[in-house]
Amino acid sequence: MSLIVYGGSVSPFVRKVRVVLIEKGIDYRLDQVNPFTPPPEFLAISPLKRIPVLRDTDQPEPNTLPDSSVICDYLEHKYPEPPLYPKGAFDRARALWFEEYADSAVAETIGRGLFFERIVKRMLRQEPDEEVCTRTLTQKIPPLFDYLEREIGTHQFFVGERFSIADIAVGSMFVNFDHAGEVPSKQRWPQLSAYIARVHARPSFAALLDEERSVIARFRAA
Amino acid sequence: MSLIVYGGSVSPFVRKVRVVLIEKGIDYRLDQVNPFTPPPEFLAISPLKRIPVLRDTDQPEPNTLPDSSVICDYLEHKYPEPPLYPKGAFDRARALWFEEYADSAVAETIGRGLFFERIVKRMLRQEPDEEVCTRTLTQKIPPLFDYLEREIGTHQFFVGERFSIADIAVGSMFVNFDHAGEVPSKQRWPQLSAYIARVHARPSFAALLDEERSVIARFRAA
Repeated sequence: MSLIVYGGSVSPFVRKVRVVLIEKGIDYRLDQVNPFTPPPEFLAISPLKRIPVLRDTDQPEPNTLPDSSVICDYLEHKYPEPPLYPKGAFDRARALWFEEYADSAVAETIGRGLFFERIVKRMLRQEPDEEVCTRTLTQKIPPLFDYLEREIGTHQFFVGERFSIADIAVGSMFVNFDHAGEVPSKQRWPQLSAYIARVHARPSFAALLDEERSVIARFRAA
Repeated sequence: MSLIVYGGSVSPFVRKVRVVLIEKGIDYRLDQVNPFTPPPEFLAISPLKRIPVLRDTDQPEPNTLPDSSVICDYLEHKYPEPPLYPKGAFDRARALWFEEYADSAVAETIGRGLFFERIVKRMLRQEPDEEVCTRTLTQKIPPLFDYLEREIGTHQFFVGERFSIADIAVGSMFVNFDHAGEVPSKQRWPQLSAYIARVHARPSFAALLDEERSVIARFRAA
């Protein structure tokens, strides 16, 4: 086994990489790294102190790559089947755009504004600030989800006729929304809500959801 | 001419796209958009209100793509020559990593901590806060530049033997450092300092530097 993923399993960015690996049927090992107390050897391979980092022992050293988007691109080029990036230049770029949208605005809003308050703070034995969560849910999330609702419309996937990195990134961020005890409103975002349920029912996502929920349950109940 | 770039010429992200276009010899039009007072038709094509956005009128509508990294990837796939991304999967991923490093940590530190204070505030008829600039220069920048110094070492380019998107992204961020009246110290970062001078001397960068300096000069002197 040549691939090691360093990171915590409830990170949406670690999950993106794991879904790509599962979808491509590639064997790997997950080495848990807590981003709040990273060991020095992790800091040496992650200049921005972020998870995940991939190590490929097939490569000469330095054989590590930080950043989930970089790692997913690498896996696609090293293991092209099944393809997880659209073929045409414009469709490919649109998929990268949805990945960026999920990884930046959606991740930050759900991550800091909900998941951090309700789950990470409990891990750190702190109290969630429900006012922050309410502001996130009522003010910050609606324009983001409105955009995704318009873009998914009646399509099966965000780009073209195939599951792609766009769906992996968006789907991954919504797992943290789920962990924080929320689902997108079926009334306000019917298409997005049905789409997220479809993506999370895929075997790749379903396996990780099962595994992660047992971790999360301990802190939800705490 | 089928390509329109929307954005302001002193943005490092707009510059990345323009350097790619110039290096590939592709004709385009720049439509100036001030990101502080964007018109409604711009907001419709830029969900995160960021510049640049590319329009390709060869494509059916919606024919726009936001995000500099997405746009550069699109241009590489539509116009492969000369290649600006390394060929091998691992080298390619390393180039994407340096692009991400430049676009996130370096851009934010130079952008908010220097360029915004010294140039953008003058454009907005506000006074720069030199304490912010000092903190940026003495505390935030050194670890970032130390990393780049180690990585460039005695190499000509960040990845392999060719100029790539890594050099375009890093080089672009250092134009804003230059606009803010700074150059990397030759004593502390000799390799990085020589590297930046080489990159900025390329015809693509040199042409944009000339054009931009005349814009910046008006605000520096103000």
